This record gives sequence, C-alpha cells and structure tokens, in this order.
Amino acid sequence: MKAEIIAVGTELLLGDVLDTNSRYLSQQLAVRGITLCFRQTVGDNPRRLRDALSLALSRAQVVLLCGGLGPTPDDLTKEIACEVLGVPLVLHEDSLRRMTAYFARTGRSMSENNRKQAMLPQGGTVFPNDNGTAPGCAMEKDGNYVLLFPGPPRELVPMFEQSAASYLDALTDGVLVSHKVHVFGMGESAAAQKAVELLGADNPTVAPYAKDGEMYFRITARAKDAESAHALCAPVTEKLCTLLGDAVYGVDVDTLEQAVVTGLAAVGKTVATAESCTGGLVSQRITCVPGASAVFSCGVCAYSADIKEALLGVSPRTIAQTGTVSAFTAAEMARGVRARGRADYGVSVTGSAGPQPCEGKEVGLVYTALCDGESTYVRTLHLGHHRGDRAYIRTVAASHALDMVRVSLAGGVPGERLQNG
Amino acid sequence: MKAEIIAVGTELLLGDVLDTNSRYLSQQLAVRGITLCFRQTVGDNPRRLRDALSLALSRAQVVLLCGGLGPTPDDLTKEIACEVLGVPLVLHEDSLRRMTAYFARTGRSMSENNRKQAMLPQGGTVFPNDNGTAPGCAMEKDGNYVLLFPGPPRELVPMFEQSAASYLDALTDGVLVSHKVHVFGMGESAAAQKAVELLGADNPTVAPYAKDGEMYFRITARAKDAESAHALCAPVTEKLCTLLGDAVYGVDVDTLEQAVVTGLAAVGKTVATAESCTGGLVSQRITCVPGASAVFSCGVCAYSADIKEALLGVSPRTIAQTGTVSAFTAAEMARGVRARGRADYGVSVTGSAGPQPCEGKEVGLVYTALCDGESTYVRTLHLGHHRGDRAYIRTVAASHALDMVRVSLAGGVPGERLQNG
Repeated sequence: MKAEIIAVGTELLLGDVLDTNSRYLSQQLAVRGITLCFRQTVGDNPRRLRDALSLALSRAQVVLLCGGLGPTPDDLTKEIACEVLGVPLVLHEDSLRRMTAYFARTGRSMSENNRKQAMLPQGGTVFPNDNGTAPGCAMEKDGNYVLLFPGPPRELVPMFEQSAASYLDALTDGVLVSHKVHVFGMGESAAAQKAVELLGADNPTVAPYAKDGEMYFRITARAKDAESAHALCAPVTEKLCTLLGDAVYGVDVDTLEQAVVTGLAAVGKTVATAESCTGGLVSQRITCVPGASAVFSCGVCAYSADIKEALLGVSPRTIAQTGTVSAFTAAEMARGVRARGRADYGVSVTGSAGPQPCEGKEVGLVYTALCDGESTYVRTLHLGHHRGDRAYIRTVAASHALDMVRVSLAGGVPGERLQNG
Repeated sequence: MKAEIIAVGTELLLGDVLDTNSRYLSQQLAVRGITLCFRQTVGDNPRRLRDALSLALSRAQVVLLCGGLGPTPDDLTKEIACEVLGVPLVLHEDSLRRMTAYFARTGRSMSENNRKQAMLPQGGTVFPNDNGTAPGCAMEKDGNYVLLFPGPPRELVPMFEQSAASYLDALTDGVLVSHKVHVFGMGESAAAQKAVELLGADNPTVAPYAKDGEMYFRITARAKDAESAHALCAPVTEKLCTLLGDAVYGVDVDTLEQAVVTGLAAVGKTVATAESCTGGLVSQRITCVPGASAVFSCGVCAYSADIKEALLGVSPRTIAQTGTVSAFTAAEMARGVRARGRADYGVSVTGSAGPQPCEGKEVGLVYTALCDGESTYVRTLHLGHHRGDRAYIRTVAASHALDMVRVSLAGGVPGERLQNG
C-alpha cells in the first residue's frame, strides 16, 4: 500500500514553522509497512491544494493531510478534500458539543467561525481532538483514503495515537507492533556489528538508528493481532539486550533521563547534580521528567573556581594542582553536592565545551563523576571531534553523567574508580 | 519569481531524519521575495526524482534540491538534474583538489567513489563545501535555474551563506535585507496592534511572528544594494522600537539569553540563578551562550523546602507561612543565591509546572524574582492555559526570569517591588 503526505500552510513555505508533522507521520507509516513515495508541502491556496491532492491521489491509495483545519477563512483543507473526493460536509453534533465544552473549559468564548470546524465529511470517521478545537477525520471514496489532521503537533500527535493509528492498522494486512531498545555509550555501527545476526530478519525486522549521541534499535513485527506481534518481538528484544549488555538503558523508554528517574524511584534513591560546562543541562533534563521531584535533591551549577569551593566544598588545593577541568575536581564536585544535597548519588560534570579551550584544556575534554557514598567513579571524555559544536559536547557530556547513575543503579561499574574514593 | 524546493533522501520518507533544510531554504527564499509555492520530498529513486524535478520545472523558474550528492551509487541528484536539463557532467579539477585536501586534513583516505563528487555540470557555478566532500552547484538552462546542495545541514547552511546567497541575489531584482525586532512580554496580536501603522507598508515590509512564548517582527527592504536596503529598514526598525518600548529585548539578537549575556558583559555585571520548577533551564540557557562564563556566577536548583533552606538560606518561616510556591519564597531564593554567588543580580523561579498541582497551587502558577542588591522584584505568572504542557510552562517561566535581568539592565522596573525588598 502506498501513501502520500501533504503538509498545508503558508507559514511552512515562508519557513516560519519547522514541519515536524511530516516526519512524525512518515515514521508512523514506516512502522506499518506502508510505503511513502512522496511528501508535498503547499500553502493556503485552494487551487494549488487541489492540484497537490489530485496528484497525490493519482499515485497513492492513502493521503494524509495536516494543517488548515482552523476556524479562519484561509483554512480550507477539509473543504478542498471533500470537493476533490465529491463528499458533502455535514454538521457533526458530537464534535460541536466537544468544542463547546473545550471553550468552556479553557474559559474562552466560541465564535461563529468555530462552528465550521464541526462540519465533517458525510459518512467519514471522526478523530476527536482533546487538545484543541479542530477534529480530524478520515474519508473513503472508491478505495482511496484521505485522512485530515490539525497542524499543531500537540494536537496531531495525540489524535494520531488515539484514533488514526487503529484506523490505519485496519487498512493494512494485520497489525504492526514495534519496540525500541535504547543504547548509550556504544556507537551506531559498533552496536549494529554486535547485533548483526538479527539485522537480516524479516519478521520482526530490526533496524539501528542514531540520535543525539545515542542510538536505538527498532524491532517491528507484523501479525494478525497485537498480542501475536508482541510475542514475535519479545525473544528478539531479549536477545538484543543480551548481546548489548550494559549498554542498553531501556526498552521503550522515552529518554535516558526517564530511565534514570524511573530507576531511582524504583529503589527510593535520590540524586544531586554539580555542573560546570553543562551549565544546568543535567538537572534540567532530570527535572523535565514528570515526577522528578521525588528523586531529585538539588543541582548546583558552578562555573568559577571560587564558586566551586564555596558552594560545593571543592578544595582550593585540588583546583590549584589539577585545574577546574580535571578528574579530581569532578570527583570533589560529586562528593560535595551529594553531601550538601543529602542525596544518595552525587553526579558532576566539568569540562571544556568551547568555543575557546578552558584553562588550556582541549575543547571537548570533559570529566564526569559519580559518588555513591562509598566510592567515586570518573569518566574521561574526548568529545572534540565535532569541532566547535558546543551544543553537541554539552548534550553528550550530560548524557554520560546521567548514564553513570543508570549503570550504578543496574549494579555495574559506572567509570574508573578513584583510589582515594 | 517562483521557486520550488525538493528534498531528496529515503531517510526523510522513513522519518529517520527531520528535514530542517527545507525550512532553512524557505526562509532564505522568503527574505529575498522569491515566491515558494510548493515543496516536495522524494526518496533516492531515479524515476521519482526525475518526475519531481520535471514537475517543479514546469511551475517554477528556480528549483533548489538538497541531498543525494554523496559518493555512493544511490546518491543520484546531480546525475538526474543534469539529465533532465540536458547538461553534461565534467570533472572539476578545483573541487577534486579541495576534496583531496579535505581528506588529508581529517586524516581519512579518499575512495574512488569520492571522485564522482567532483564531477560537476558543465558551465555551471560551483558552490565550494568547507565542511564536507560534496560541492554544491547551480546550472541554468533556458531561463530555468537548478541549485544543488548536500543534505547535511552543517554543510548546506554555510555553503548557502558563502556562495548560494549571492547567486540568488543576482537572480532577483536588487538585494533584500531584513532585520528582526525581538519582543518579550507582549503577545503577537497585542504587539501587532501597537505597530499597526507599520504593517501595511510595502518597502520595507513589516510582519509579526510568534515563537516559543515570544514574538518578533521581521522588517524586510529591497534596494539596489545592501547599504540602501539597510537605510530603508533603519527608520522603521527605530519606529518599531519606540512603539513597543521596554518590550523590545533586542534587534537581530539570537535569543533572550543572548541579550542578557551581552547586556551583563557590557556593564561588567554578573548573575546567579536559583530555580525550582524550571530545574536548571535558566542556567542552562544562559550557559548556552558562548562567553557566558564571564557573567554567570552560579546556579542552584532546589526542589524541596529543606534544600531551599540549606543551599539558598530561605527561611523556614517563610516556607511554612507561604509555601515553596510563593512570591516571598521566590524573593528569598533570589536574595540567597545572589549572596552565595557573590553576584550583582540574583534571579529565581519557583512554581507549579505540572502535571500535578504543587502544594495545591494551580498548574502554571509561577513566581520569578530578581534581587539587585537594593530591591527585590517579583512577577506572578499564570501559565496554565496550556494545560498539561510542562515544557511550555518551564520555557516561558525561564524566559521571564531572564527578562527581569534584561529589563533591570535597561533601567526599567522588572516586576512588582517588594515592600521589604
């Protein structure tokens, strides 16, 4: 089965908005084994939208449109789609009720324009919108399927998961289920090499992906129902975890920090962070996770030597002898913040993130440390091969700090153990 | 003049890669007044790429293709483009030399495949690549222009700026110059209302845009040369700044944090941050700016009441009487971190970011405070209309904390002044 995606909106063509919807929908088609041959982007222009949709219908069985379902006159996607397919629009009472309730809940008044959003294709399937006013919908004509979604990603993504996913599943042969095995501390090609025996399989398929200094494998199985598909995935997921060992930080978790927060919460432990070159990125990532307050004690972000001494109790002698970018300073930062935050784990980052070398240390040289109350461990990182990429260095350094907590929770050795730790 | 963008790559259609190039190129076309009516995305498939390019050439004078210039056999963009336009490929000696030098510099060995990347359209314009192996190029045939760019954004963007920008400028009538006036603390429609007298103008044009809880105006002028275009923009930019007053945080600055770091550096002052619900986001944003170490003293991220007392010196009585989410706690956090960090400014955030209400306070209720050593100011924010959007609440709350520093530096009143401040 072939599909095509059309993103609608003049703001896209002006470059004011980055189109994340097309990527999201592409991923959703890919995991279902639906072939996407083209994507188009078109502005809020009736004639061009009509041309784009007609072209898409000439070469794909399923067309997904996103954007242009709003209340204003230039929102025309639904009207054009119905015109092209020859399907009339009718008032959908349930959507009108939901919309009225939505406006009441958010304390805004509903204008007459909004009523247009409750007009939906006759005989179609309605996708309710829990995060906005415009419902989505699907319609079928002569074996062609057209699905309409609102433009804002925070409306589109939940709508897809709640309604459109099962609609598409029903169009395809059986059900697709996929799982992700998340890996940190091993590059994409090294990980793929370790798992090479699994990569050629057909059902489930196993594919490696790189992402922000991490990598993951996607395991996808097709079967007559979800239960059978999960059963096909299970042994492969397990095998992957065995092959990759400690490098796997989670299966189907969102992020490394999610894995850390979940892991800490499971054993009732807490963490405190001390950061230099990451500037609060580690604490920021931990506290992004809902519920982090139960496991996060405190974070101290100290750039200068005297603040490292005053707030974290790093000894002036250590700094004088080894510099602020050193394994010993990292270790004392971890110990210091653990004590001050009365936490189970203290974790720290100090390094040279660029653009200028810090204390003459090469850009990309970073130390992360973890103190668990008994021992202190350090990782020495050389992240300078992405020259001048401050954001990359900070991201990967923060990930290593998080990973040290993760490995320690899993009973592994999170880094090089310091003798006087 | 009409243009079209074609992004090439199967990885895009699988959703493995987010297409930021198309947005970047869209912006570049928009500021030049070149009309973009369609964008297409197509995989590494010769027939479909040919169809896409022929379609684009049938409706646009300028076609920009990105991706598919690599050394492997599935990289076919250049070959197909030359075939469609009827232009032969010839070896470009200078590109071969650059490529050889690039491989020598990065310590890798050059394969025979790479030679294919130095084959370029006869009579075309070459866009050198300083960040990778594949040069870009432009070719013209019968009044149609086709521009080719490599897929990696870190190669495409510098190449565009260094070579393709002037190529496109030469195609358009004169030169386009644009400036951005960045606004915080005023919504897009309120700001547009204040500037309504400027919005109808033709040269320069003035357009409002919303972005991450902020907004900006883009002022774009066309003239025979850059100097004249800048001269057309200047009075309008000035007028906008007058109309919007304190709400303008900068002209042509990247971010609010950039404005804060620049502003602090200009007067040799420093800032320390104390955060609760933003979890380090304020310090992280400040330290993202290269050179932040000169103005950033320290950041303390304290979730719990006892850590607020221990690390920031917030009085237990204040917390007992007003809670950790209160104007008084925010004020004491700002004062405490200023003293501990020996900084000129102490700035703080405490609030309820969700998903659950904190201490029974509504989700989205946030207090930010600033202490300048003489007085303490507080802002009370109600950000809960984006229900459940923890990331949005944190972003806007952090922006307010940064904005308080910015307003204070500009000599304004950054919030409500506390009586006992």
